[in-house]
Amino acid sequence: MYGPEFADILGRVRVKRPLVHHITNYVTVNDCANITLCAGGAPVMADAKEEVAEMATVSGALVLNIGTLNPGLIESMLIAGSAANKHNIPVILDPVGAGATRLRTESAWRLIAELKVSILKGNAGEIGVLAGAGGAVKGVDSEGLKGDPVQIAREYAKAEGLTVVISGETDIVTDGSRTLLVENGDPLMGMICGTGCMASSVVGTFAAVDDDPVMASAGALAAFGIAGENAAEKFGRPGAFKIALFDELAALGLMELEQYARVKEA
Amino acid sequence: MYGPEFADILGRVRVKRPLVHHITNYVTVNDCANITLCAGGAPVMADAKEEVAEMATVSGALVLNIGTLNPGLIESMLIAGSAANKHNIPVILDPVGAGATRLRTESAWRLIAELKVSILKGNAGEIGVLAGAGGAVKGVDSEGLKGDPVQIAREYAKAEGLTVVISGETDIVTDGSRTLLVENGDPLMGMICGTGCMASSVVGTFAAVDDDPVMASAGALAAFGIAGENAAEKFGRPGAFKIALFDELAALGLMELEQYARVKEA
Amino acid sequence: MYGPEFADILGRVRVKRPLVHHITNYVTVNDCANITLCAGGAPVMADAKEEVAEMATVSGALVLNIGTLNPGLIESMLIAGSAANKHNIPVILDPVGAGATRLRTESAWRLIAELKVSILKGNAGEIGVLAGAGGAVKGVDSEGLKGDPVQIAREYAKAEGLTVVISGETDIVTDGSRTLLVENGDPLMGMICGTGCMASSVVGTFAAVDDDPVMASAGALAAFGIAGENAAEKFGRPGAFKIALFDELAALGLMELEQYARVKEA
Repeated sequence: MYGPEFADILGRVRVKRPLVHHITNYVTVNDCANITLCAGGAPVMADAKEEVAEMATVSGALVLNIGTLNPGLIESMLIAGSAANKHNIPVILDPVGAGATRLRTESAWRLIAELKVSILKGNAGEIGVLAGAGGAVKGVDSEGLKGDPVQIAREYAKAEGLTVVISGETDIVTDGSRTLLVENGDPLMGMICGTGCMASSVVGTFAAVDDDPVMASAGALAAFGIAGENAAEKFGRPGAFKIALFDELAALGLMELEQYARVKEA
Repeated sequence: MYGPEFADILGRVRVKRPLVHHITNYVTVNDCANITLCAGGAPVMADAKEEVAEMATVSGALVLNIGTLNPGLIESMLIAGSAANKHNIPVILDPVGAGATRLRTESAWRLIAELKVSILKGNAGEIGVLAGAGGAVKGVDSEGLKGDPVQIAREYAKAEGLTVVISGETDIVTDGSRTLLVENGDPLMGMICGTGCMASSVVGTFAAVDDDPVMASAGALAAFGIAGENAAEKFGRPGAFKIALFDELAALGLMELEQYARVKEA
Repeated sequence: MYGPEFADILGRVRVKRPLVHHITNYVTVNDCANITLCAGGAPVMADAKEEVAEMATVSGALVLNIGTLNPGLIESMLIAGSAANKHNIPVILDPVGAGATRLRTESAWRLIAELKVSILKGNAGEIGVLAGAGGAVKGVDSEGLKGDPVQIAREYAKAEGLTVVISGETDIVTDGSRTLLVENGDPLMGMICGTGCMASSVVGTFAAVDDDPVMASAGALAAFGIAGENAAEKFGRPGAFKIALFDELAALGLMELEQYARVKEA
């Protein structure tokens, strides 16, 4: 029942080709740029504090990813995020590794507190830590959280006034009142570096053309997940699979997204 | 008529394997390194102000790319460029995103003013902005310039005493008096992140072994364009196409370059 | 005769999935992350001085790579390395480009002097320079060293109390008393950017689960070399070869490693 709306969003992405400004890590930055292009957006990566406000202001969405953060980068994120907020440009935050170090946890909290973040997308451990719900993170990998992830995501979303996405075998998307579960995807996506970051880029690309962060997030994750399923049908090893993941998202048809999205309400 | 000269340059690249020093962005840096290897050069990426003069001095060319610039990087570019100038090592500047933010526009102008840039290679919007000819740039993509791009490139080249390259469906290469149009390439090259940066790396690699910046630029763009054409014959999707782009440049024969270069005088 | 021990180490990597903390360059960082995953480890890249001690402390190994170093990064390496030393976590140093600039040479010496480096892995030129044995390095490529590399590696290892690895057609691994020669690999590995860095990541992954740095290094290089041999059987061009290199390491079986490792004592 969500398929037609997702297809509509993807259609708008491809017509409008929104600029998606990233302040992100240097590990997966090239993957993020290419997956944004494959989704139908136009990526731009810029992190100097002297230019981020200007760049964010002309963009359709701002994706903040703390994968290789440092204090200077956080400052740039605050400047860019503040400019985006003033212009009602959605801000997507991927708190990579929150919980693994104090710098990451505290920086994520600070970004959430000082900016109006539209969509917060992390793994179970990261969201669990940020929500104060006993999450555990090792390096950049989730070691889970205590309790029911849907409930934790809902309460945290309500408390902070944002949309929370917990990525996993089933992705959870909630703004506190509405909760969608996205079941698309393939285990191979967890065997390559960067799928989490790429998912955030696709979410940002969808959010750039749609005012509903829950639908934009769920649609993006369904599209990216279907691309993963299609890629996994062709290649079973990580290197070839990764290349196919780009290609399958670029080739994803609107009707295909409509038909194969597996999303339900929680 | 240019084919034999281009083949001669490529032959010298492969014999001499010139070191090509890059101060570049962290988005496409790996692609730039690999495409330099595929062209026949030896890439080195180094941006610390403490070492760039030393590195530039032993290199065959210096490629400056402002794709993710910041004030510290510009300082390193000025130090490296000045050292390169002293040793008559050609400096190639790719003003990525000039026109999108003041930092980028002004930094590009500063590099052009303070260094002897041999080859300035950008898209139409970037060159239009830098030349004061009403260019428009969104993110890192050209939205065109006002007027005749060949005329604008010619006048800007003459005024600044450098070779201007405007990349596009047809690439324009001019030093103000001689103007070549390179028609090789494939639209798929615009669907992946990094082809512009990679083209600059190939230009730098060719310029490292040839004193004529117009011929080096045109030859490099013809070679890279033919690789793109060959890759597009095999793969129609961006991920697989990109891998093939590397492979086709690495496999490009001298006679193939001679035969398939489509270059004419404007 | 070493095959069974190497297979045992690889088996432990895959069971324990050790966290491998990298402070590395922005050129090959994505390759290092992905090859660590393919080997069976969990990569994390973090370089802010505010968090590196915390991250290193929970890791199984710390890989330091000076490919795009600057003074701030060296400071982070010293902080992380010191924390790793306190917790008996092995430190692997890849002195990329040592000998090419004073900054690189002196930074590598400083890291060796101030930290307890477990494994120092470089090409012949880099190790030759660091050992004071007349090495030559241009950019990041070895131009060889004067004298017998096995002898130089042995003496340097003994003098510094670490394991020295010289990568090359035949890799040399020595702690000064025991010396192993690893003959696996393929010339195509030298035609892509990043194989040296990736090899160091695999060495770090093996060292994270084995206390014997000589066996961990030799086993890692044998595994990575066999992956290169297998990839080269399938693809002869650099782009496709690189993808296959990841896939072949991910698919490498324990018995395959046991059977095809070509390692002998010097």
